[in-house]
Amino acid sequence: RDEKITLSHGSGGKSSHNLIEGVFAPAFSNPLLDAMDDSATFNIVGTNPRLAFTTDTYVVSPLFFPGGDIGRLAVHGTINDLVTSGAQPLYLSAGFILEEGFPIADLRKIVGSMAESAKEAGVFVVTGDTKVVQRGKADGVFINTAGVGLAHPTWQPGQNRLQAGDKVLLSGPIGDHGIAIMLAREALEIETEVQSDTAPLHTLVAALFAAVGDSIHCLKDPTRGGVATTLNEMALSSDVAIALDEHAIPVHSEVRGACEILGLDPLTIANEGKMLVIVSGEKADEALAAMRKHPLGRETAIIGSVQSSPEGMVFLRTDIGGMRVLDMLVGDPLPRIC
Amino acid sequence: RDEKITLSHGSGGKSSHNLIEGVFAPAFSNPLLDAMDDSATFNIVGTNPRLAFTTDTYVVSPLFFPGGDIGRLAVHGTINDLVTSGAQPLYLSAGFILEEGFPIADLRKIVGSMAESAKEAGVFVVTGDTKVVQRGKADGVFINTAGVGLAHPTWQPGQNRLQAGDKVLLSGPIGDHGIAIMLAREALEIETEVQSDTAPLHTLVAALFAAVGDSIHCLKDPTRGGVATTLNEMALSSDVAIALDEHAIPVHSEVRGACEILGLDPLTIANEGKMLVIVSGEKADEALAAMRKHPLGRETAIIGSVQSSPEGMVFLRTDIGGMRVLDMLVGDPLPRIC
Ligand SMILES: Nc1ncnc2c1ncn2[C@@H]1O[C@H](COP(=O)(O)OP(=O)(O)OP(=O)(O)O)[C@@H](O)[C@H]1O
Ligand SMILES: Nc1ncnc2c1ncn2[C@@H]1O[C@H](COP(=O)(O)OP(=O)(O)OP(=O)(O)O)[C@@H](O)[C@H]1O
Ligand SMILES: [Mg+2]
Ligand SMILES: [Mg+2]
Ligand SMILES: [Mg+2]
Ligand SMILES: [Mg+2]
Ligand SMILES: [Mg+2]
Ligand SMILES: [Mg+2]
Repeated sequence: RDEKITLSHGSGGKSSHNLIEGVFAPAFSNPLLDAMDDSATFNIVGTNPRLAFTTDTYVVSPLFFPGGDIGRLAVHGTINDLVTSGAQPLYLSAGFILEEGFPIADLRKIVGSMAESAKEAGVFVVTGDTKVVQRGKADGVFINTAGVGLAHPTWQPGQNRLQAGDKVLLSGPIGDHGIAIMLAREALEIETEVQSDTAPLHTLVAALFAAVGDSIHCLKDPTRGGVATTLNEMALSSDVAIALDEHAIPVHSEVRGACEILGLDPLTIANEGKMLVIVSGEKADEALAAMRKHPLGRETAIIGSVQSSPEGMVFLRTDIGGMRVLDMLVGDPLPRIC
Repeated sequence: RDEKITLSHGSGGKSSHNLIEGVFAPAFSNPLLDAMDDSATFNIVGTNPRLAFTTDTYVVSPLFFPGGDIGRLAVHGTINDLVTSGAQPLYLSAGFILEEGFPIADLRKIVGSMAESAKEAGVFVVTGDTKVVQRGKADGVFINTAGVGLAHPTWQPGQNRLQAGDKVLLSGPIGDHGIAIMLAREALEIETEVQSDTAPLHTLVAALFAAVGDSIHCLKDPTRGGVATTLNEMALSSDVAIALDEHAIPVHSEVRGACEILGLDPLTIANEGKMLVIVSGEKADEALAAMRKHPLGRETAIIGSVQSSPEGMVFLRTDIGGMRVLDMLVGDPLPRIC
């Protein structure tokens, strides 16, 4: 067999999942990695304090887009993977790959917005690295950020903790990031002002923990692969079903319109400032109220619930009263979205 | 001004230094980054334990070379930046950028050697990320590793701690990595079997700490920019002079020969398994003995000493009895060495 990497291996959807499960996970296998959470959490020595550690590389194209740039994304994305694991983000690393010929003025802008977003979120870039490759061997700038945070003292992340009766909360409208990038990329005949939703979610999640704490069963930022992929992963690893109400899922009308024209499903599109929260049924309203009070959660909605069967599946009750299976993202309609 | 990134910005030498000092350091400035050590070291909460955190991105070409591959390098390099800061390496992250069309069999080999080198060194890859870019937008595979370690409880890294009378120890022959890459890259008419020296130095440095502990004034792995650049940075930040004895500097004869043919100076060539140790004069022999007992330090040599002036300069007493100023690397004779 003469298999090659394809763009779908980077989609965050089914092929990404298969590549990680088939190549990386078995080779590196250890209990911390095997959990396959957004961050690894561990005690350095003895029992305290627990730390969280995560990484993401950013290859978004274009580098600058409505609502942000690769620098903001590289700070927010890694903060959010710490937050998703219940941690307080503290320190970031920054590894740059620069293409020969890249304008230093653009680099200054990107570094400036990284610095600004780090400051806004109260995290520090404490270590870095800078490599250069020949013209044509990269695409302007790629950035890796790794993040270290102080993990929650008791709460553990885990996609396998969903229970029948849990509610699914989504912190706001989906698809803005992916569509903003798509529209910035192609000179499409669509006149809209869709902006990336890129944002750091540490204070939103802190408010949620303050309100309902241990009733949170799972947190997950629906980035590559979107809400559909993220929920499928949860359903699979918890052996439950998830039923969503299409009418309850917030989507900006411009995004819905663009998706129709482009033949995309907002549920598989990447977000960079949204959180999916799985919370026990009896605490759902309290969680909703707490999130809605936060500026980044004003449009939070309860979009569905967890059922015991059919195990590993996600369903959508459509607006027109039907029911359809919602799969993970297959293929990659929007390569290099982050 | 219309400045662009050039390959020398990635050399690890003077231009890299200027780019970091001119663009990254001022934007991100904070006490941990400002130290400009190989790792940032900090206490997470309260006073204990101290952690070390570092990152490097690997863009070496070719991906496979005599003595190693990008995967081994990505594990060893980050381990060594933790070790250089006096830390015990614990956990790594792994961020991959894959080019569309890259053979999955090659990826498996690289991931396999990362896993193997991590295992050999007792560290764990606990979190990762995988991105794919279109054909022609990367060069096969780029890998970022960040590392978290347990910092030494008392010893602090610092290039500013050199004192007149200190001795400079080098753990073995220099230039092997750079020349191995160079020869693998070009189909040169040079018949040699130079192998990369890539190796994890945690046990060598542990043996050194056990022998002379606080008498170690500075540790540094002479990677990009080589021994010449590394010692210049120390001399500058400690306001001292360093005098080296050319005859004392170990260089394999094949490397010396290749350097002569290629017009390169072994002192500016990258190493991936060597350590420079600055130790107080009276403990130099004990340090030498301890390092020579270790398999990775058998050829350790005392290559020079620290003087009070002229401040910020490095000199070489040449084999023919002359004296020349040894500058940082200028330009980039060997792009993408790591
Ligand atoms: N190359 C890799 N090696 C080891 N583990 C990996 C690798 N790539 C991904 N993983 C692991 O797979 C899981 C999913 O990774 P993924 O990057 O999809 O998550 P994410 O960062 O939350 O999403 P996104 O990258 O879209 O923001 C994580 O647990 C991650 O640590
Ligand atoms: N893009 C960046 N942003 C912030 N700090 C950076 C950046 N690039 C490098 N640095 C900092 O500059 C210093 C020197 O970095 P450099 O990469 O040269 O060190 P190194 O990793 O020891 O060498 P090498 O990369 O050759 O192995 C380190 O303190 C590093 O944290
Ligand atoms: Mg992520
Ligand atoms: Mg995530
Ligand atoms: Mg580096
Ligand atoms: Mg390094
Ligand atoms: Mg170093
Ligand atoms: Mg990721």
